Amino acid sequence: MSYCFGVDVGGTTVKLGAFKENGEIIDKWEIPTHTENEGVRILPDIAASVKEKIEAHQLQLADCLGLGMGVPAPVTSEGVVNGSANLGWKYKEVRKELEELLGISVVVGNDANVAALGEMWKGGGRGQKNMIMITLGTGVGGGVIVDGKVIVGAHGAGGEVGHICVDYDETEHCGCGNMGCLEQYASATGIVRLAKKQLAKEERKTVLDAATVTAKDVFDAVKQEDEVAMEIAEQFGEYLGSGLAILAAVADPAVFVIGGGVSKAGEVLLSYIAKYYQKRALFANKTTEFALASLGNDAGIYGAAKMILDK
Amino acid sequence: MSYCFGVDVGGTTVKLGAFKENGEIIDKWEIPTHTENEGVRILPDIAASVKEKIEAHQLQLADCLGLGMGVPAPVTSEGVVNGSANLGWKYKEVRKELEELLGISVVVGNDANVAALGEMWKGGGRGQKNMIMITLGTGVGGGVIVDGKVIVGAHGAGGEVGHICVDYDETEHCGCGNMGCLEQYASATGIVRLAKKQLAKEERKTVLDAATVTAKDVFDAVKQEDEVAMEIAEQFGEYLGSGLAILAAVADPAVFVIGGGVSKAGEVLLSYIAKYYQKRALFANKTTEFALASLGNDAGIYGAAKMILDK
Repeated sequence: MSYCFGVDVGGTTVKLGAFKENGEIIDKWEIPTHTENEGVRILPDIAASVKEKIEAHQLQLADCLGLGMGVPAPVTSEGVVNGSANLGWKYKEVRKELEELLGISVVVGNDANVAALGEMWKGGGRGQKNMIMITLGTGVGGGVIVDGKVIVGAHGAGGEVGHICVDYDETEHCGCGNMGCLEQYASATGIVRLAKKQLAKEERKTVLDAATVTAKDVFDAVKQEDEVAMEIAEQFGEYLGSGLAILAAVADPAVFVIGGGVSKAGEVLLSYIAKYYQKRALFANKTTEFALASLGNDAGIYGAAKMILDK
Repeated sequence: MSYCFGVDVGGTTVKLGAFKENGEIIDKWEIPTHTENEGVRILPDIAASVKEKIEAHQLQLADCLGLGMGVPAPVTSEGVVNGSANLGWKYKEVRKELEELLGISVVVGNDANVAALGEMWKGGGRGQKNMIMITLGTGVGGGVIVDGKVIVGAHGAGGEVGHICVDYDETEHCGCGNMGCLEQYASATGIVRLAKKQLAKEERKTVLDAATVTAKDVFDAVKQEDEVAMEIAEQFGEYLGSGLAILAAVADPAVFVIGGGVSKAGEVLLSYIAKYYQKRALFANKTTEFALASLGNDAGIYGAAKMILDK
């Protein structure tokens, strides 16, 4: 039986999966990420864990198609990472090192891009070949898939959709150093920022409390038809919808898949985004669909496995 | 000898080229575009002209690798056009019709995308695989090339870079119906619009005349260090540089190639764009290069031929 591995390396845990060629999952497990000493243990730990599983399942190394892996950093098409703050890595030839440790074929990609591939294969974008995934978490990440392939780019920095400018009048800085980035309005922290600004000048009654408000609070309040929360959701929708209209003019996807913690708000989120997307999108892009991501934290291991199967 | 054809269909003339497999051009000619009666003659005219050339050069149809063609419309990956204002076409299965007329393999693409491919192959982006071409003409067109392939998209509308929003405060409409599109500031007509606005409120001495000013006038005056023209060029540079920073965050090109009539202003143009690009680009994209297109009106036939050679 041919099989492969999908690995998703995070700053705290490494998620791993073993898959049959048809995408059926054989096993799924986690190991801790040891980021100390510039993350020197991360790849040997992964290799040891994968070898154990091969033995435990009595698999043959010769039947292994390889290992795909997503990491939180830009990755070149040669599998080289030039620094990852979350893992402690400096310049690292990740593919080469892991291939030497394991003796199987390895493909490495950026974690957000890999998750996008997973959602296209088995999740919210299933059946599509042109898809953009937007991950609304602490920041805004994403993956742009064109004709079945993720855009990696010349510097491994393709699909940095959180850093397109959607407000040229912004005076506060994004973590990247610029001003007006989509991430400043559409991430969980961005929504909190919008909420605090609105609450500071708000006179209407609301269930939201400026001192403790979270992105989840905002969309919970929207579901209770809290007017102030709905106003904040409109602002969020306008920024994100406008940003997605820009992305559509460049990459023309069939579907936007919205994932990350903020997307747990569900369908109500999509209605706010789609309203402003419709307003701003070019004629040819107006029929683009919206879907929620459906694989949750498993998108990374599915996408990583898919990279090997597509190789 | 293996050979192929590259065709660039415009609203007034059709440009055609015959190429050897290595890209050497054998012959180059033009025929008029007959757009009357929903452009019904266009494809038969092209087929007849190509057949004549095959005879004239005593070529064998069996050695023909095919014909690539750029048309002024969105084109699906199946070579279907769903309306072209410039050619009079409604829904048209362009690839299928031309293959039936000629008996050779045909590939069809959007003209701006095809020109981008030409510039990557033999022009300003030579040697690159990740490139964005920006065509500054009456409008702003473009082509986004990722890993050697043009982004076509789900609706054939990929690379519509002229319609990304770069000014959310704009109150005048773009031809597409939206407001704040890059095309409203960076096209030849956009530059005239910026110039007229500036001249209306300007008190400094300038060689520019609001009644007759053209984009060429502006950059000619910049070369004479006309202060008002330089101010207009700064505005142009800020809009276009900001727009390109957005494109870089999505597609991460190695080089931007700037073409179209406005690009005849030369290197001075690039300096204004690069200044604001640097200001707005994400860290990973700051080293992206700028180059002028070098094939002029031949970019389309080169790119069209390249589509067949890449097939």
